Amino acid sequence: MDILKVRDRVIFNPEKLKKVSLFDTENFFCDVYCFEPGQSQKVHSHDGSDKVYYVLEGRGKVTVGSEEKEMGPDEITIAPSGEDHGVVNHTQDKLVMLVFMAPKP
Amino acid sequence: MDILKVRDRVIFNPEKLKKVSLFDTENFFCDVYCFEPGQSQKVHSHDGSDKVYYVLEGRGKVTVGSEEKEMGPDEITIAPSGEDHGVVNHTQDKLVMLVFMAPKP
Repeated sequence: MDILKVRDRVIFNPEKLKKVSLFDTENFFCDVYCFEPGQSQKVHSHDGSDKVYYVLEGRGKVTVGSEEKEMGPDEITIAPSGEDHGVVNHTQDKLVMLVFMAPKP
Repeated sequence: MDILKVRDRVIFNPEKLKKVSLFDTENFFCDVYCFEPGQSQKVHSHDGSDKVYYVLEGRGKVTVGSEEKEMGPDEITIAPSGEDHGVVNHTQDKLVMLVFMAPKP
């Protein structure tokens, strides 16, 4: 039984968004996304898989479908299967999100 | 696009563990589990579905398989498909967890 302290897994990459895998099973991914200021996950979509974004630290603009909204700590949203989604850290601070996607694409 | 503030969804039930559904799709459940002191989720298992527990607030003892370990804020663990798992709030404080399970059983 592995217990992970999520903040201890946070790592940044000056080049691009750093995705840190926490759990990767046959059924889903559970990752931490670590954005330096200005970094982003480009808007994309995947049929058949839903994704949840939960903000641990910082603020970012999240796109789902044709909408873009700002999210902050303790806020959660879902990008349903097939809908465009992406994230941009438009702030001067770091942004850390817990991300869950199922099933694996 | 719905953005939910997770702590705003927290509700307790004096009778038993309160599970609050945040997202319920064809692919997974995403819930908040709200335990008053002494409340628990009985040890159980489900073949084919993995579950992730992430502690938002408080402390609890989590069983996975034959192990029981204490978890606190910002700690995360996984109960793989088919393994026994459960939670008990053995403390005098409230315990709040974010829980993902996929696929739906």
